[in-house]
Amino acid sequence: MITATMQRKLQIPEAMKAWVLGRPGELRLVEKPVPQPGVAEVLVRVGATAVCGTDLEVINHGEPALVQGGMPFDKNFTPGHEYMGTVVKLGPGVDEFAVGERIAVEIHAGCGRCERCREGMYTACLNYGMNYGEHDKGHRANGFTTDGGFAEYAVNHVNTLVRVPDGMGDEEATLVVTAGTAMYGLDVLGGLIAGQSIVVTGPGPIGLMSVGVAKALGAGPVILIGTPRDRRRLDIGLQLGGDEVVTVGEEDAVAAVQRITRGRGVHYVMECSGAPNALNEAACMVNRGGRICLAAFPREPVRVDVARLVRNNIYVFGIRGEGRSATRRAAALMAQKRFPARLIHTHTFPLQQVPTAIRYASERIEDAIKVVVKM
Amino acid sequence: MITATMQRKLQIPEAMKAWVLGRPGELRLVEKPVPQPGVAEVLVRVGATAVCGTDLEVINHGEPALVQGGMPFDKNFTPGHEYMGTVVKLGPGVDEFAVGERIAVEIHAGCGRCERCREGMYTACLNYGMNYGEHDKGHRANGFTTDGGFAEYAVNHVNTLVRVPDGMGDEEATLVVTAGTAMYGLDVLGGLIAGQSIVVTGPGPIGLMSVGVAKALGAGPVILIGTPRDRRRLDIGLQLGGDEVVTVGEEDAVAAVQRITRGRGVHYVMECSGAPNALNEAACMVNRGGRICLAAFPREPVRVDVARLVRNNIYVFGIRGEGRSATRRAAALMAQKRFPARLIHTHTFPLQQVPTAIRYASERIEDAIKVVVKM
Amino acid sequence: MITATMQRKLQIPEAMKAWVLGRPGELRLVEKPVPQPGVAEVLVRVGATAVCGTDLEVINHGEPALVQGGMPFDKNFTPGHEYMGTVVKLGPGVDEFAVGERIAVEIHAGCGRCERCREGMYTACLNYGMNYGEHDKGHRANGFTTDGGFAEYAVNHVNTLVRVPDGMGDEEATLVVTAGTAMYGLDVLGGLIAGQSIVVTGPGPIGLMSVGVAKALGAGPVILIGTPRDRRRLDIGLQLGGDEVVTVGEEDAVAAVQRITRGRGVHYVMECSGAPNALNEAACMVNRGGRICLAAFPREPVRVDVARLVRNNIYVFGIRGEGRSATRRAAALMAQKRFPARLIHTHTFPLQQVPTAIRYASERIEDAIKVVVKM
Amino acid sequence: MITATMQRKLQIPEAMKAWVLGRPGELRLVEKPVPQPGVAEVLVRVGATAVCGTDLEVINHGEPALVQGGMPFDKNFTPGHEYMGTVVKLGPGVDEFAVGERIAVEIHAGCGRCERCREGMYTACLNYGMNYGEHDKGHRANGFTTDGGFAEYAVNHVNTLVRVPDGMGDEEATLVVTAGTAMYGLDVLGGLIAGQSIVVTGPGPIGLMSVGVAKALGAGPVILIGTPRDRRRLDIGLQLGGDEVVTVGEEDAVAAVQRITRGRGVHYVMECSGAPNALNEAACMVNRGGRICLAAFPREPVRVDVARLVRNNIYVFGIRGEGRSATRRAAALMAQKRFPARLIHTHTFPLQQVPTAIRYASERIEDAIKVVVKM
Repeated sequence: MITATMQRKLQIPEAMKAWVLGRPGELRLVEKPVPQPGVAEVLVRVGATAVCGTDLEVINHGEPALVQGGMPFDKNFTPGHEYMGTVVKLGPGVDEFAVGERIAVEIHAGCGRCERCREGMYTACLNYGMNYGEHDKGHRANGFTTDGGFAEYAVNHVNTLVRVPDGMGDEEATLVVTAGTAMYGLDVLGGLIAGQSIVVTGPGPIGLMSVGVAKALGAGPVILIGTPRDRRRLDIGLQLGGDEVVTVGEEDAVAAVQRITRGRGVHYVMECSGAPNALNEAACMVNRGGRICLAAFPREPVRVDVARLVRNNIYVFGIRGEGRSATRRAAALMAQKRFPARLIHTHTFPLQQVPTAIRYASERIEDAIKVVVKM
Repeated sequence: MITATMQRKLQIPEAMKAWVLGRPGELRLVEKPVPQPGVAEVLVRVGATAVCGTDLEVINHGEPALVQGGMPFDKNFTPGHEYMGTVVKLGPGVDEFAVGERIAVEIHAGCGRCERCREGMYTACLNYGMNYGEHDKGHRANGFTTDGGFAEYAVNHVNTLVRVPDGMGDEEATLVVTAGTAMYGLDVLGGLIAGQSIVVTGPGPIGLMSVGVAKALGAGPVILIGTPRDRRRLDIGLQLGGDEVVTVGEEDAVAAVQRITRGRGVHYVMECSGAPNALNEAACMVNRGGRICLAAFPREPVRVDVARLVRNNIYVFGIRGEGRSATRRAAALMAQKRFPARLIHTHTFPLQQVPTAIRYASERIEDAIKVVVKM
Repeated sequence: MITATMQRKLQIPEAMKAWVLGRPGELRLVEKPVPQPGVAEVLVRVGATAVCGTDLEVINHGEPALVQGGMPFDKNFTPGHEYMGTVVKLGPGVDEFAVGERIAVEIHAGCGRCERCREGMYTACLNYGMNYGEHDKGHRANGFTTDGGFAEYAVNHVNTLVRVPDGMGDEEATLVVTAGTAMYGLDVLGGLIAGQSIVVTGPGPIGLMSVGVAKALGAGPVILIGTPRDRRRLDIGLQLGGDEVVTVGEEDAVAAVQRITRGRGVHYVMECSGAPNALNEAACMVNRGGRICLAAFPREPVRVDVARLVRNNIYVFGIRGEGRSATRRAAALMAQKRFPARLIHTHTFPLQQVPTAIRYASERIEDAIKVVVKM
Repeated sequence: MITATMQRKLQIPEAMKAWVLGRPGELRLVEKPVPQPGVAEVLVRVGATAVCGTDLEVINHGEPALVQGGMPFDKNFTPGHEYMGTVVKLGPGVDEFAVGERIAVEIHAGCGRCERCREGMYTACLNYGMNYGEHDKGHRANGFTTDGGFAEYAVNHVNTLVRVPDGMGDEEATLVVTAGTAMYGLDVLGGLIAGQSIVVTGPGPIGLMSVGVAKALGAGPVILIGTPRDRRRLDIGLQLGGDEVVTVGEEDAVAAVQRITRGRGVHYVMECSGAPNALNEAACMVNRGGRICLAAFPREPVRVDVARLVRNNIYVFGIRGEGRSATRRAAALMAQKRFPARLIHTHTFPLQQVPTAIRYASERIEDAIKVVVKM
């Protein structure tokens, strides 16, 4: 039932407030026209948007955003990809969602016509960024190639929408896509992880969600590895279902994993730290035939012991965000309250304070983990 | 290079000849406007269209066609799904193909937004037939839910196009989708079939293409099973790469397979006969853990020994046509001349004689196998 | 630490009490030599053995047991495959388990040398039953081709052993293999079931465990279907995590599933009833591209609408018991107390009363579900 | 039929000639007792043994051989793993092969009881090298952990045997395991490669066999990359089915691949060179979502652009030799004469000249590719 209050909320103005990217590092709050949903799209009134490390990359360095085929600067582009909100208008042909439904979003809507999309691997769409002018192939990546969530409204392809249950708060709902990335990482590792051992390296948001999702699916032991600086995060990791935490510096990470597993190593490593030696250490943590998912990476090339990968039959899977409808499956676990995702949300700011929110996230002020902008 | 002759051919008239379905069993040759390609679509000047058994079902019984949500009768609907031709016009945003390219078509373009399409299983699109009016979800199935190939021109989604090499004749090119179905069947059976044994039951076009594709991929022995009436087809099966043929009536099919495999049974059965007892026999042909692909079926429910399937760990895969880009992979084998697909083409008629072509195919006149209509 | 009491328990006598199968339907309690573990085997002191429906088949009809290549009658054969106990002696080369460890068992140890075993599908071992004399290929199926658990001691291949945590009672531990079968069924259905819908037909032990495992892995909705006679079982299904139960007779099963899923159908059906029309109904419950696992079957051939399977791209997987180490993964979920498996245990009898235990199970006396024999 | 000549050949002496490894780099021809086949084993009269690059590693550095838990020196150990011969005696319980059959061998027989073996990944056996004394878990790796083929006789587990057809020469038959490694690499890349593009880097024996197998399965284009020194090998690559060869030095490898694929990149790279920058280049050759199999590796850690792997959704699969019965499937392609494997055989020496054979192979004397020792 749509109440009068909801009705008012659903009235759509012609203009909206939105942050846009100017020069590198420069964000401006502007008025923009509210966008219109096209075929297979909806208009979302944004409720909350979380800050992700990748947003910082986009804002400061441009990459990995790709707007109209180039750098995202000075193009009136609105970043932000971890958001949730309410469907307020349906594009032509949409009946999968109804006006008034609360939704979170995943990032990628593939073109649906390249080889990768046709095999279901839409986050590896070969027409990535091709969504403008004559080159419009229909690919959309919220906050990377199309306008994102640091605004009052955003247009979304129906493929990116995930229902949010009533009992889940706005802030928690922004974490659905993060959990979806964690779930997708576990998918590519094989998915059958109940009773299997897993190391998660790096207790950032994706790492922590990986702990939560892995434990929810029955993995064990789930071992989370961080640095002394990550103490709070490691504690949250335990609350999310981690069986063991290892603090690098207090103990060698590989040695700790071998100690915990009595020398057998683990089946899987979910690499979420981007540390320079992370892949090598992961290769020393898994057993022969083990698998490693890379959800983070060091900026620069690093020395890798490729021989170890080959000699031990190790498989390494690079993923860029979510995929295979994992976001919806992850949302289902969150809706069933399988792990307290909200714990990683630490700070909230209003839309006007996006730069402050970003500063808290990037500088880890007050030990911030997930910083959310609430509309 | 596009020559003057080609240029003339590529000039597109406003009207075209097309066969349309009236009442059940009734086909009429009419003038229709040449359709216009939309986003992600091209216009194809049809070169040749083969008659498939399913066309007969559509023409006489309506099913499995689904036009505007209902039976295909009296809707100006043009059947025909096994066709090839030349791209003559590109819809907005299309650069995957160029005007003048020869192509064959596969049947299905999924909606790209349902769960199945998102996982790459676009032939099982959950929005099957939803391509009209407010319900337009973008699903297209040539000759089943959209106009097909018994006409001079047809619109196709780019996803359905497969390039045809110069050296391949028009008639042979119409078989690409049939080979694609065979390839897809082998895909779902696991795909790693070199040196593995396979039975193909039913030497119709899909069965014969299954023999060709399976042998091209190194399967062995490839055993083809038919009836005394199929003698010519069985001979062609041998030329397509079959290692053994079995004539039911002369020998019990299950006994023959056990004889040939020295009691071990085969790894796979590709069921292309639709015979009432085919599934039971297939279950007696495969070894424990064996797999059966059903590419054909009896119209009515039949008695099945389900216990045998369970006790022997047998997997059964129903497929409806092609999928997983198998058509393109099958076309690659044909382009490499791995098996003489053209052998199953037996008759050619001009567009004016579609009813005759259909009669030849349905009544197997002059031992017809694949009957092609040439424009 | 092994205490003095344990030491005493671990002292192994030369003879033991065991039930053996005489003529069909006839069980006798005899003295037998305690067997000796060979290479890769251990001796288990049986703690508890549950009665399975398949035991009744074996005792009354011989099948599916296969002892020394033939019927199991009058061969001094001890049935029983759902048991747990304590490792009391190690065969040569065994160090994977230690004397004193509590374990449950799965049924199958494959030969390790046939094609199926080499691909990991050891429950479909092509040398099934070949474990005697010159034909000894090393295959073992507890209680089917080798002596089972209705005895004080049993020899087991290390591959069949699953550790049981201290907190899990003997009766519950006998259910590990049942949960393993449920888990394996979900494996073959694809395994990625969080947030996916599933119907379980037939609330027997495997059906109920399927509900528990599916829900533990995040599936939803989980719909359990039974008959009016199954009221107690359906209630237990809800406690095990079922979201909905349907009582056939009160409502048509297919209609109920379509009502609950709002006409979308489910992704998966786990068929555990063996009802004559179960496969047809399952095919009407799943959506296009849906999958059905058959863990039960009707004794006699039944009418099946094969056309529906093909037209809807449905895959059907027959399984015979557990596989792919699913039993260990299921045990992990039980150890983590993800679902109250013990609820399906209803009755306990001493070893002397095996025939009574079997009668309770087969006749469902006092609404028995899982009847356990405790040593 | 076993002729008198064969009979004589099948008479088994008590002692045999065998090369054994003394100190690093030191091979001695000695007399040894002919070994006896145990359970599930056969005795093979070796017909021919090829020299593999890994043999050189073993002989000079010890690794990757692991004999009785340690370095292989001074343990009377016979190296050599690429061999073929005739079955001359069957161990207990063997009926899969008959005395007199010609066979080639694959390397690995897994223990059959660890997690990896139980899932079919027997080349990643967790009990690798555990085949002696109290630790005997049944793992066998010919010429690495057990005596190999530079001898007149060798014992083999039945799992390692592959039938060799009459028409295939001894020298060609030694290449079966090399082709099996190539096939396994294609398996892990997905296996469905007809019409898919692939780069093979490094025209050594595995690289060349990868070209042959990939083309036999319909891949295209198949691009082989080598150095100016590899001119002869690149020519052979073309004869084995390669569509294009690239000579590094004449053209940048990545640029060449992008030129050939018109900027689209390839689906797969099979890395067989072990060059320091090979993984980085492979990552620049595949398209988004592409896959790389590492069948070779640089000895020392190298700089790797991990970011590129992650950003482009690239999967990297390390393999150590063959697996998944790929050797048997590869042998089937060779038996069907799908590619002229024999072309890579360049030199033959008698058993007495194993050191010369090894020198020819390691120093590429007379442009040697595959050097075979014939008994």
